[in-house]
Amino acid sequence: MSFRRFAILSLGAASLARAQSAPPPNPRLEWVEVASGVWRATIGSPDGASLLDSVAAPPRRDALGRLPPADFPLPRAEIHAVETDGKIALRLPLTPSEELYGLGLEFKSVRQRGTVKELHVDHYGGTDNGRTHAPVPFYVSSAGYGVLVDAARYVTVYAGTAVRKDSEHPPPVKDRNTDRTWTSMPLSDAVEILVPARGATVYLFAGPTALDAVRRYNLYSGGGVLPPKWGLGFMHRLRTSATAEDALREVDAFGAKGYPLDMIGLEPGWQSAAYPGTFVWDSTRFPDPAGFLRAMTGRGVRVNLWINPYVAPRAPVYDALRPLSGSHTVWTGIVPDFTLPETRRIVLDLFRREHLRLGVSGYKIDEVDGYDRWLWPDHATFPSGLSGEQMRQLYGLTLQRATAAMFRERGVRTWGLVRASNAGAAALPFVIYDDYYSHPDFITALANSGFIGVLWTPEVRSSKTGEEWLRRMQSVCFSPLALLNAWADGTEPWSFPEVADQVREVMQLRIRLLPYLYTAFARYHFDGTPPVRAMALVDGFRVADSASVPGASRDPYATATRRDVKDQFMVGDDLLVAPMFAGERSRTVILPAGRWYDFHTGAYAGNGEIITATPGLDRIPLYVRDGAIVPLLAGAPTRIPAAGERVDLEVRHYGEAPGRFELYDDDGASFDYERGMFSWTPLVVERDRDGRLRGSVQRPAKDRPFAYRDVRFIMMPTH
Amino acid sequence: MSFRRFAILSLGAASLARAQSAPPPNPRLEWVEVASGVWRATIGSPDGASLLDSVAAPPRRDALGRLPPADFPLPRAEIHAVETDGKIALRLPLTPSEELYGLGLEFKSVRQRGTVKELHVDHYGGTDNGRTHAPVPFYVSSAGYGVLVDAARYVTVYAGTAVRKDSEHPPPVKDRNTDRTWTSMPLSDAVEILVPARGATVYLFAGPTALDAVRRYNLYSGGGVLPPKWGLGFMHRLRTSATAEDALREVDAFGAKGYPLDMIGLEPGWQSAAYPGTFVWDSTRFPDPAGFLRAMTGRGVRVNLWINPYVAPRAPVYDALRPLSGSHTVWTGIVPDFTLPETRRIVLDLFRREHLRLGVSGYKIDEVDGYDRWLWPDHATFPSGLSGEQMRQLYGLTLQRATAAMFRERGVRTWGLVRASNAGAAALPFVIYDDYYSHPDFITALANSGFIGVLWTPEVRSSKTGEEWLRRMQSVCFSPLALLNAWADGTEPWSFPEVADQVREVMQLRIRLLPYLYTAFARYHFDGTPPVRAMALVDGFRVADSASVPGASRDPYATATRRDVKDQFMVGDDLLVAPMFAGERSRTVILPAGRWYDFHTGAYAGNGEIITATPGLDRIPLYVRDGAIVPLLAGAPTRIPAAGERVDLEVRHYGEAPGRFELYDDDGASFDYERGMFSWTPLVVERDRDGRLRGSVQRPAKDRPFAYRDVRFIMMPTH
Repeated sequence: MSFRRFAILSLGAASLARAQSAPPPNPRLEWVEVASGVWRATIGSPDGASLLDSVAAPPRRDALGRLPPADFPLPRAEIHAVETDGKIALRLPLTPSEELYGLGLEFKSVRQRGTVKELHVDHYGGTDNGRTHAPVPFYVSSAGYGVLVDAARYVTVYAGTAVRKDSEHPPPVKDRNTDRTWTSMPLSDAVEILVPARGATVYLFAGPTALDAVRRYNLYSGGGVLPPKWGLGFMHRLRTSATAEDALREVDAFGAKGYPLDMIGLEPGWQSAAYPGTFVWDSTRFPDPAGFLRAMTGRGVRVNLWINPYVAPRAPVYDALRPLSGSHTVWTGIVPDFTLPETRRIVLDLFRREHLRLGVSGYKIDEVDGYDRWLWPDHATFPSGLSGEQMRQLYGLTLQRATAAMFRERGVRTWGLVRASNAGAAALPFVIYDDYYSHPDFITALANSGFIGVLWTPEVRSSKTGEEWLRRMQSVCFSPLALLNAWADGTEPWSFPEVADQVREVMQLRIRLLPYLYTAFARYHFDGTPPVRAMALVDGFRVADSASVPGASRDPYATATRRDVKDQFMVGDDLLVAPMFAGERSRTVILPAGRWYDFHTGAYAGNGEIITATPGLDRIPLYVRDGAIVPLLAGAPTRIPAAGERVDLEVRHYGEAPGRFELYDDDGASFDYERGMFSWTPLVVERDRDGRLRGSVQRPAKDRPFAYRDVRFIMMPTH
Repeated sequence: MSFRRFAILSLGAASLARAQSAPPPNPRLEWVEVASGVWRATIGSPDGASLLDSVAAPPRRDALGRLPPADFPLPRAEIHAVETDGKIALRLPLTPSEELYGLGLEFKSVRQRGTVKELHVDHYGGTDNGRTHAPVPFYVSSAGYGVLVDAARYVTVYAGTAVRKDSEHPPPVKDRNTDRTWTSMPLSDAVEILVPARGATVYLFAGPTALDAVRRYNLYSGGGVLPPKWGLGFMHRLRTSATAEDALREVDAFGAKGYPLDMIGLEPGWQSAAYPGTFVWDSTRFPDPAGFLRAMTGRGVRVNLWINPYVAPRAPVYDALRPLSGSHTVWTGIVPDFTLPETRRIVLDLFRREHLRLGVSGYKIDEVDGYDRWLWPDHATFPSGLSGEQMRQLYGLTLQRATAAMFRERGVRTWGLVRASNAGAAALPFVIYDDYYSHPDFITALANSGFIGVLWTPEVRSSKTGEEWLRRMQSVCFSPLALLNAWADGTEPWSFPEVADQVREVMQLRIRLLPYLYTAFARYHFDGTPPVRAMALVDGFRVADSASVPGASRDPYATATRRDVKDQFMVGDDLLVAPMFAGERSRTVILPAGRWYDFHTGAYAGNGEIITATPGLDRIPLYVRDGAIVPLLAGAPTRIPAAGERVDLEVRHYGEAPGRFELYDDDGASFDYERGMFSWTPLVVERDRDGRLRGSVQRPAKDRPFAYRDVRFIMMPTH
């Protein structure tokens, strides 16, 4: 139906010419409610390469049904689509006060209204132009709805920039010669989206809040991933040339020095050849892979293997994969078409035999994003019929899906790294990283990741000074993956002796936060709430207007801009993280409405205001809400507890208000939680008859997983 | 024929899948020799929006016929084209040693092999990714041929990067773990080009040299533009708010202080409103436009008007243009479709009446390039049927063509500025400028402009120091347009008193060089030789290999690279310009084979070697060939001589070898040169019987234009 109504709009150039002075055509799209608060419309003839289908994670309909009921969030009559110049142009209305967020893993800004993005899987090149590791074609509005264009194409989004001549809400005409309020960005009343294909599938996600729209998007994508507990520990990636002996020595050094360690990553040198790869162990550096894995397992350390998917002629699977690979090579390796079941079968058989059977716990999937100059071209062809463009948008998803499925079939969770992702990735057990290395921009990416259903780590590699080293380590410990990636430089947490103690302290805090972090991820899985999120998704957060106009001679189109809050973010519901960057002695922090307290000391910090933090070098500024309850592992653990291990809990309460925290737990390793084997345990702090705060825990039934033995409440002093 | 042969290659996805494991299809394109040494092939069904047709300059067949005869320059059987994914993919072979140049006005590099460009009209954003003011889809090979894809589309060129699996010349497989010669860019044996349309027209230009290929490209585009003589003088653009009185005062200040001035430019404030514009004079700042123009003409100064094409509702042509404009607005102004004759008629009628009739000499056509965030979107529609994408690639060309035609119909040449251009622009009387302001990168653009048939000015606007000011002024005086653009800051040549004398000196040298420069432009017009060109187009120029691998941790794909010579260039055949940048006390200069001499002193400088120049602050390093003859205006003129004015000539000879220079002249203002009214006058220096160098001039016949009275030869001392 929707196609037929649409088809009459496939105008040729001549009729377009006639049509364009008339009001725009008004084809109501046929919206079908495909899940609670989720509507889909099909425009034209989509080409079959769907981002969501590439992940194939079934929507979490149960959880969607538990969200507040919601009406169709936009005026249907104001959504238009036409086919023009062989492409699909889509238009959705905007009101003047709306802010837009999302549109890919960008590094420079959180607010996206007034930008244009050509969403294109790529390394991040320093400009928020849409080329990035996860160019997710999803945006969420402050008005409380989300829009997804599910097309594996280089979709261009004009996020409130293109102003139509026949707009019903035209911006005022101003004379730049005399009117100081002139702006290079007259307010547009729409988002316009160009899909360079003959069709597209579009989804609308209702609110009522922006966070609800994000939740619906995540739940429709299968719900957020629940990592294994060990995945929330600390990962150290070894120098690329490391041998088995080097690895053991390094792991033992962590232990001897008291630095937490849960995962090590082997970089390209574990393979007998790399770029292109063989996927088999190098017999000189790793003469006994099975023994090596046993030794690591014995130390409680997981092993993650670096790969990129480009297959060397000497790889055992090369001949079998050659007909199943694309027309072009990458670094002389063939490019397997992972959308084909036969490709997956051949590759995964090798991986099972060479890696999983020995105990490998996950992968780092490198270089599936590209630089254009070494990836396949857009006109490359693949045996599945996909074009180079489509494959580029999908490739990271297909590798995540294929490798994750291999662990799932063994009943164990995996946790890994990937450099390209896209829409629908929420359920995939991978964290994005990249080679770009700006600490402030890494934090902006962390804030932006929460809008689009992906996870991001601001990995630490090297630093110019001990101060920078510590500041980066402090940040990464409040991200989905606490990672030191020493592949090139062989750095270690204690590489800067002057801050070695503080680094250890924040790494230990990371481990202690496991109950809080694991619960935040459970919320990601069970109700779609992103574990790390931007302030724009926080209730009670507002930013005052501020304006700046830089020197006209250097940027004649400078526009007054409002403050973009991109250097602080939330972890879970209660913890506000405000990283410090090298060279800073203080920073401002914007506290949402309500009373907030210093995480470290419990002291009152402020209430819905901008405060200045001067934390000294040792600590990263962290704030918690009034009444917040933060469960931590007791003591000073140096690794995530093993499955079945019973540990003590320290439950902190902050502020004056009573509080309640639903602590999640399960076995931390298997998929039994999908069959109900989990527990939600209320941790409650109330005032007793004397007005004193008292904590209590309602332990779950004996047959429920619950790793905690003693539970000790600490009422943090507020001054 | 070509279409039919091609059509069988329009494979669906399924048949592509079958085909792609077999050798690539080999459809020989049907090449038609459309001019001497110029071949054209049509692939698929081109969509009718041609870059060359938008300029509509007839090929200079006579001049093409005078170039050396040449065979088809590539192995025909190795050129392939297929339609894939609704687009055209073209493949042309490369040999291992070829270098590639061109592919748009880029600012960071001259050598383009190993790059990927998505050619897209845009402001230059700091990265050589193909988005630039003149993203000309033309490249020239060091092997002596050129390739043009004539499509008004965002063409992507993989300039020797994409390596096919079935390549007959595959690069060697290397293990990055152990092989230090591994490179992130294995050598590809082809250029692959993706045209996102159902067809494209491709041209091949023969050599035998790379410079000959460029000449053929320029001549096929109509031959290079011959500016009016006054256009080679000095242009000063006034502060945007300047009044008629301000302008007169400024012009008189130039005269009083002895600074050359031939053109002034009025910025947006001349109009009654701007952004969007009215195109009529502001009655407060310019109460008597006709009187103002008369006053300027009386002072021998031309007036150039800033415009951008976006039409304000209060413009007198708004109502007439509204139905002839695109679907979207720019800064609330409508966007006229200049491909329609009726649009041109309406706009040019106004321009003739308001501007040309009063004596305006030319335009600065601003903001036809875009930032995406304020231009029309790619899916905009235009009454001609062109898409936003096509219009973006063409818009600068259409405005150049339309306004230039208006001057031609009056029989006078114009000379102006434009911010967007494209292929086929050689004959258009416009110089490109932009807002980007890196002095070194501006020089790289100057070198690159000569490959692609466009002109570029490294305009001066402001500086942090007197040193920077002088270095920028020195550079701009050796460009196609010596321009101080003071629109924002109100700078003047003497704004930095500590270098005011040196600035005046180089401005005067610029004026004195008129005979040399005008002859260089005549060569552009008559034989296609670009007046400004990169060293790569100079006979006898070679660069030794050098390698550098930056820190792997920050750029893990760093590749050994050869030196890219982008900081020196040629003006005409004999003058090598090596600009200095602020902060430099010395620089290296690479001299081509043969003996070279210092322009300022005549002293021997070197022979096919790398020298170090330490010129001091006062001078820009300039070198001339052995035997070079450089004609200058005698004395210390402060403006370009008027038409009909007779002046004296100083002819410098450099070095030891005899020399000969063919001095071009015509009336400098009209198009009579197209009807043969010009002269080429040999200036000859030979050794007499005593071995002494003697100069002689063979004056043209009396009925030929020749502005020079006394001709005095100066043999420059060589030490």
